[in-house]
Amino acid sequence: MTLRRAFAVIACMTVCHVTVRDAGAQETPTEREAAREVLASMAEMQEALDVPGMIAEYTAPNATRDRIVARVEALMKTELLALSDDICRTPEVGYKETRSVQKLAEALEAHNFSVEVGVAGFDTAFIARHRGGSGQPRLGVIVEYDALRGTNGAFHGDQHCSQGPIGIAAAVAVAEFLEQEKLPGTVTVFGTPAEELLEPSAKTTMHSNHVFDGMDVIVRSHASMQTSRPAPGFGTCCLNIDGVKYTFSGAPAHQMTAWNGRNALTAVMHLFGNIDAVRSNMRPETRIQGIITEGGAAPNVVPDRTQADFYIRYPDEVYLRQVREFVDNAAKAAALATGTKVTIDNYGSNRDGISVSTLAELAFAYMKQFGAGKVNEEPGKPQGYEESGSVSRDIPGIGFGAYTSDSPNHTYEMEADSFKPVGHDGFTVQARAMAALLFDFATRPDFRAAVEKEFAHTRAQFDAYLAALEKVYVAPAVPDPK
Amino acid sequence: MTLRRAFAVIACMTVCHVTVRDAGAQETPTEREAAREVLASMAEMQEALDVPGMIAEYTAPNATRDRIVARVEALMKTELLALSDDICRTPEVGYKETRSVQKLAEALEAHNFSVEVGVAGFDTAFIARHRGGSGQPRLGVIVEYDALRGTNGAFHGDQHCSQGPIGIAAAVAVAEFLEQEKLPGTVTVFGTPAEELLEPSAKTTMHSNHVFDGMDVIVRSHASMQTSRPAPGFGTCCLNIDGVKYTFSGAPAHQMTAWNGRNALTAVMHLFGNIDAVRSNMRPETRIQGIITEGGAAPNVVPDRTQADFYIRYPDEVYLRQVREFVDNAAKAAALATGTKVTIDNYGSNRDGISVSTLAELAFAYMKQFGAGKVNEEPGKPQGYEESGSVSRDIPGIGFGAYTSDSPNHTYEMEADSFKPVGHDGFTVQARAMAALLFDFATRPDFRAAVEKEFAHTRAQFDAYLAALEKVYVAPAVPDPK
Amino acid sequence: MTLRRAFAVIACMTVCHVTVRDAGAQETPTEREAAREVLASMAEMQEALDVPGMIAEYTAPNATRDRIVARVEALMKTELLALSDDICRTPEVGYKETRSVQKLAEALEAHNFSVEVGVAGFDTAFIARHRGGSGQPRLGVIVEYDALRGTNGAFHGDQHCSQGPIGIAAAVAVAEFLEQEKLPGTVTVFGTPAEELLEPSAKTTMHSNHVFDGMDVIVRSHASMQTSRPAPGFGTCCLNIDGVKYTFSGAPAHQMTAWNGRNALTAVMHLFGNIDAVRSNMRPETRIQGIITEGGAAPNVVPDRTQADFYIRYPDEVYLRQVREFVDNAAKAAALATGTKVTIDNYGSNRDGISVSTLAELAFAYMKQFGAGKVNEEPGKPQGYEESGSVSRDIPGIGFGAYTSDSPNHTYEMEADSFKPVGHDGFTVQARAMAALLFDFATRPDFRAAVEKEFAHTRAQFDAYLAALEKVYVAPAVPDPK
Amino acid sequence: MTLRRAFAVIACMTVCHVTVRDAGAQETPTEREAAREVLASMAEMQEALDVPGMIAEYTAPNATRDRIVARVEALMKTELLALSDDICRTPEVGYKETRSVQKLAEALEAHNFSVEVGVAGFDTAFIARHRGGSGQPRLGVIVEYDALRGTNGAFHGDQHCSQGPIGIAAAVAVAEFLEQEKLPGTVTVFGTPAEELLEPSAKTTMHSNHVFDGMDVIVRSHASMQTSRPAPGFGTCCLNIDGVKYTFSGAPAHQMTAWNGRNALTAVMHLFGNIDAVRSNMRPETRIQGIITEGGAAPNVVPDRTQADFYIRYPDEVYLRQVREFVDNAAKAAALATGTKVTIDNYGSNRDGISVSTLAELAFAYMKQFGAGKVNEEPGKPQGYEESGSVSRDIPGIGFGAYTSDSPNHTYEMEADSFKPVGHDGFTVQARAMAALLFDFATRPDFRAAVEKEFAHTRAQFDAYLAALEKVYVAPAVPDPK
Repeated sequence: MTLRRAFAVIACMTVCHVTVRDAGAQETPTEREAAREVLASMAEMQEALDVPGMIAEYTAPNATRDRIVARVEALMKTELLALSDDICRTPEVGYKETRSVQKLAEALEAHNFSVEVGVAGFDTAFIARHRGGSGQPRLGVIVEYDALRGTNGAFHGDQHCSQGPIGIAAAVAVAEFLEQEKLPGTVTVFGTPAEELLEPSAKTTMHSNHVFDGMDVIVRSHASMQTSRPAPGFGTCCLNIDGVKYTFSGAPAHQMTAWNGRNALTAVMHLFGNIDAVRSNMRPETRIQGIITEGGAAPNVVPDRTQADFYIRYPDEVYLRQVREFVDNAAKAAALATGTKVTIDNYGSNRDGISVSTLAELAFAYMKQFGAGKVNEEPGKPQGYEESGSVSRDIPGIGFGAYTSDSPNHTYEMEADSFKPVGHDGFTVQARAMAALLFDFATRPDFRAAVEKEFAHTRAQFDAYLAALEKVYVAPAVPDPK
Repeated sequence: MTLRRAFAVIACMTVCHVTVRDAGAQETPTEREAAREVLASMAEMQEALDVPGMIAEYTAPNATRDRIVARVEALMKTELLALSDDICRTPEVGYKETRSVQKLAEALEAHNFSVEVGVAGFDTAFIARHRGGSGQPRLGVIVEYDALRGTNGAFHGDQHCSQGPIGIAAAVAVAEFLEQEKLPGTVTVFGTPAEELLEPSAKTTMHSNHVFDGMDVIVRSHASMQTSRPAPGFGTCCLNIDGVKYTFSGAPAHQMTAWNGRNALTAVMHLFGNIDAVRSNMRPETRIQGIITEGGAAPNVVPDRTQADFYIRYPDEVYLRQVREFVDNAAKAAALATGTKVTIDNYGSNRDGISVSTLAELAFAYMKQFGAGKVNEEPGKPQGYEESGSVSRDIPGIGFGAYTSDSPNHTYEMEADSFKPVGHDGFTVQARAMAALLFDFATRPDFRAAVEKEFAHTRAQFDAYLAALEKVYVAPAVPDPK
Repeated sequence: MTLRRAFAVIACMTVCHVTVRDAGAQETPTEREAAREVLASMAEMQEALDVPGMIAEYTAPNATRDRIVARVEALMKTELLALSDDICRTPEVGYKETRSVQKLAEALEAHNFSVEVGVAGFDTAFIARHRGGSGQPRLGVIVEYDALRGTNGAFHGDQHCSQGPIGIAAAVAVAEFLEQEKLPGTVTVFGTPAEELLEPSAKTTMHSNHVFDGMDVIVRSHASMQTSRPAPGFGTCCLNIDGVKYTFSGAPAHQMTAWNGRNALTAVMHLFGNIDAVRSNMRPETRIQGIITEGGAAPNVVPDRTQADFYIRYPDEVYLRQVREFVDNAAKAAALATGTKVTIDNYGSNRDGISVSTLAELAFAYMKQFGAGKVNEEPGKPQGYEESGSVSRDIPGIGFGAYTSDSPNHTYEMEADSFKPVGHDGFTVQARAMAALLFDFATRPDFRAAVEKEFAHTRAQFDAYLAALEKVYVAPAVPDPK
Repeated sequence: MTLRRAFAVIACMTVCHVTVRDAGAQETPTEREAAREVLASMAEMQEALDVPGMIAEYTAPNATRDRIVARVEALMKTELLALSDDICRTPEVGYKETRSVQKLAEALEAHNFSVEVGVAGFDTAFIARHRGGSGQPRLGVIVEYDALRGTNGAFHGDQHCSQGPIGIAAAVAVAEFLEQEKLPGTVTVFGTPAEELLEPSAKTTMHSNHVFDGMDVIVRSHASMQTSRPAPGFGTCCLNIDGVKYTFSGAPAHQMTAWNGRNALTAVMHLFGNIDAVRSNMRPETRIQGIITEGGAAPNVVPDRTQADFYIRYPDEVYLRQVREFVDNAAKAAALATGTKVTIDNYGSNRDGISVSTLAELAFAYMKQFGAGKVNEEPGKPQGYEESGSVSRDIPGIGFGAYTSDSPNHTYEMEADSFKPVGHDGFTVQARAMAALLFDFATRPDFRAAVEKEFAHTRAQFDAYLAALEKVYVAPAVPDPK
């Protein structure tokens, strides 16, 4: 039990630590001050959108939509919940999800998707395009399938095993509808590996390889202890993050004549010490932590190669750059002081994403309408629909977080719930709501326009916010010693 | 090639760093000052012993001895060089030498030794007692057989593979002689594993388990680039050593709320920093070096377990105790400062051993007489016949170091020489000289008396030396702050 | 100009850094959570008190009070503003305010006070008791007179020079009134030195010497850029503070043989390093900073005595104890690791004080009524009427902060304003309001009862708050290393 | 008493720590190896010089010399011992020796020297040229007069007070002789301040200002517990030294918002930590020690200026350069890691000087001949006649170290001996021997030639030695991290 808990803490890179706070994404007085005008402009925009009116209209009875939603339910019951159970029972960790991807690809192929496995250099990424669609709008569905690393091996404590089946159900139902009705629009399912790993960030790499280009909207589901949606705006669950490895090389020598060596272990320890010593000269919301992944080979030889792995976090990316400079300088100073050399590898990053109320509120309304449990009416913090922020700040979208477990994310208990009614029911609600929203998006030009408008405005305000932050974070002037 | 060299450095715990210096073991001005009277007393004793005269007498023509020596040569040629080649071709690292031990045990059994495999808790230690002997003197032969760890796997770069065959050849020939002649005396071969590992020190553990109790003399061979012998006295090749592991435990917590944790990585880094900061307050001959063997699991979790491995060295064991106290206090202070806990595991130690000229000079004379190559007439530093110093400071003995390779210890080249004439010839010289010396020891009461006398005197002087050191290493008085 | 600014920053120990925030004193989410019930109870109590009604009644026209207030104005104009100017022109730093005390004592003696100079071991502390009073209530007036240390010598950048005259004016007028009217009650003026110094905290020492025992209310004035009053509750301007000196002793030795020494400079630097390394394991609101006041005598001698001076701060005193333990352990670990010794001297502390609305609102109303400028209607953070929190958490009272300068505290400009109308007018307002409030307190039993009731309730809630904090600040459990 | 002892240690920058060792200046195995050929060449040269023969000839009876020596004795008795006592009673520390210089200048003027006070920018340096001399050889006499800093003020614990009178006595007697005999040659007395201070090194500065240019020989006296002379060669008493100050500037900020600051105290502590961490990667004969001379102003303000003062030492100047690079890099890394700036001020240096046997042996012979006490027949370590090594490696010369006290240098007891017979007698011996040697140098061309030859050869060998060291001190190659 203790070990399981310990693991749950260890494996949780980003999403675990969700604390309830005010809906704004600004976490520091400085940020709140910088965001004042931006937030006012966004409040004004929200006022103008009349999202509640829109939701009321869209969620009113609609036979076509109900037919699609029923198709989703049938797919889940007859086929895809079984697939979910199967993947949940065969967990594979990030970048090793070969079998999971094969099972998902088979299901997609069986429903008339052409599947390309191996994308952007990742063996377990895929793109599945429905053969029956064409033209715009382009509807994207992101699915994940990597398991967590536990002390007893891989396990699906975050229920990523269900995401493929949920996304496939919605994608198939909507794609079939468009094809049958000969309506313009395409449906694409994106298989994105290794959500739990920052090294590298699969979505960021795929996005920079233009995998998601052209999508008009992207949806995704995620396991949760409650049914909720984010407030509109920009933000991320757990600060902006840079994952960085610092590798030091020295010169080996026997302990008896260590002056013929240069000690790379000393260097990597200096890196930590240098950081600790400037913690009070960085803003208190800064979070920097590292481990030593290589600490020398033998006590009688001067260590000539060592490595540290750091997560460097700050609420916003602007000050995070200053923090990175502190840490990179700490590493360079460590090398300089010890006569060693260092390489700096920023292997992954998480950044603020964008959430829009037009998508979030409709998703939330449908989840409730379809019977989602444990509803939290309070909007969550603004944040994108995927953890990296890279895609969600370029393309509008929404993550569907319905109640699917009674236990927190990243626990063995949440894995167990994947096979129970709480899981199965929640997954089905997510799939149905996802399909309903995609249906509206595909068939309602006014909805698409509203989403586009809100997204563009939010993005512009995000840029204004970042620009405002640039002005407030002035590094102090240091004169030459007299 | 670079990798091989790097390894050669890495694997070399104790014996590599032999620098030629004056024959005394005292390496610091303070030690030399403290040893003044002791060295004078030892010089006087050497004068009195007339070792050259003794050597001249013993090494004069002797048909019985020549027969035994011839028997050794025959054993090597017909059987034991082949066994050496076999073990050299099948290297096994420390505490894993199962096959090697089996081969050696078979050979010993075949020559009327009863072999007990599994001694003092070590699966690959053994004791082989010749069935034909009884009474005193008790002649002991130590053999080793562990290989080095190389980047391409285990290899016999220190030629330990030849020690078993050499020791067996000498033991068999002398034991047969005693049995045939119905002379009193026993021959015992000790198989000691893992010479290359300090963790744990096999010989020290076996000795504290009374494995060597009762032996009157112990012999052993070792590979070398030259034929040499140690000066009489006490010392060790490469300083007295303590091998110590420091393990820290903290409390885990997510990086976002690190104040709920206690960081064991910080603690272990403090250990290093604390040591570095008092280096100038320890005598400059001190050598302390460590590596971090566990440095945390994930950068987003406060590391709750870390470990460091240190070799702590000083020329003598008296000041080494003060050094250990510095390092242990560094660890305790690290725990205190970080709110963590520490355990200290002194897993192995090397100490000064004793060498006596009566044995060393006779061994040297026989090796030369039997044609050993590359003779260095200058006596080496005093040191025991085994690396730990634990056995060699209690029981007199001698290590036979004849020229067996053209390459330094701990190299792939030295391994290769095991199969060549340079190796085979040297091994045979060692075996013959070993048998000749054991013959003299078994048959000459005056020789035994001389060895015993010299050893007792040297040991007493060693105690006097340690007592003198206790007096000079006074820790400075630190008053309370005013 | 640069130097002046630098000084202004340097000299400001506690009061400068006032940021406007919500009225609650709880500065962290944890504190706010712990204070929930306490704040609810206090809000209820405030509701019940009907302070606005009380204020309206007391501040209504009253000829007796107006006479007293007029007497105050006359004293200021004819005598005490001149005394203020005199002291402002002759600044004396903390514990050296000999002349200032003499001048104030003379003025008090001249108005029938018996003055005892030299109290609680402080040469420049005094108690002045009006000879004409007797019985309860006991009215106390605290006055300060220490100057700041500037780069050009002492200066009165915090206008403490005016406090004596203000307090004397109010004390004399009210004491004369009580004597003339033969009303019960005594008036005592307390001269408290060295407000700017934490070493030692004069008020805390005087309080622990029972100097203020028996007072029913205490008043005090302070210079300000605005007219304001604190919200009711408990708090302090700038976190709870411990001022602590760490002194290390080692053993001296020549640099050439530093192993004969123990380095106290290394020790004191370890103290800093040890603290830095656990900063991330302390809550982010922690503020610890120190300087090295003694850093060794000569580079060729091992430093045998060093000292550091720290300010250790946290929003509440409960977690501050844990922080202190971290820092004290950092010092003990530094000594342990370096073979030195350390003494820990907690030379001064600031803690939360208590403010009550019954006093604060009446003081504020009078200041406004008497024409105070730059009124800030928003109540400030709860905090006591004196900086240490020691007196103000035991005895109800109020500080009068009227507009007396256009420049921030601790500036040369604020000193200059002492001589101008902005200063003279503000000082006079403070003196008049102080007298009016003391008059009400002396003559209205219902007012005294309300103050006593509010103070007792607040104090009880403060205790409940501290007890709640004790429960939330649980140190993490650290298991033994396995 | 304790304080006095403490001081004695503190004040002793260079000369106190003289340990008896072998006569060679090479202190490490590496140096001895590098010096092998150089030492052989020097031994050969010594063989060729036949110094004993030369000494025998020069020290034979000589009426002219005896007359000069008698004149010296008379000057001491009638005038200059009184001047010595006077200066000894009025100690002035380095660069403040105004009165002492005035007294010496008066004495020199009185004996026909023209005195220029204020040389090379030093107010208390002087050059005194005898008015009666002309042409070559040019005889130089260096005199010192600075006192030590004691806990009770300045004191002459190194008897520098006597050097002026001694040097004047010899200079006057020899100059009068040359003038009277109309012999070519000039006598110049150089007053060099602040021998005890490295900041700056007066002699080095004066030499780089060409003050000593053109001298053919320079003599100087120094107090001692024995009568001795250095062996010929190059060396220094207590390692080659660089005195360096590192000054850091940061940005101030209030402790409450320390992120607006950059901490110069952290930086200076990093400097120490960075050095400590590479101690084991520098040769063990390295000695680096520093103090913190400025460690911050107030604990509630981020320190924006700090300073450390270091003595950096190594037996030779070649490896010392590498050590300096380590330390300078430690400082630059400290600044880089903390966002501060650093300036590096190498304020003074001591280097190996040159001693020649031709001068040393004659000086020694005369001192013995004139009755010097406590003669040590063993030659001391080679070293120059002045502490900086700058002058003594360019101009041949000799320091006269006769027995003048029964207590060690830098003690109150040695000061006391200045006034006693042990002092007065020793001073007179030094003055007489100095005059005798200068007489020989002025009148014997063969002596001058021998000195010149030996000096040139030694200097060439010194260059060869430094070149050899350049080759052995190869910094290890550090590859880029892979």
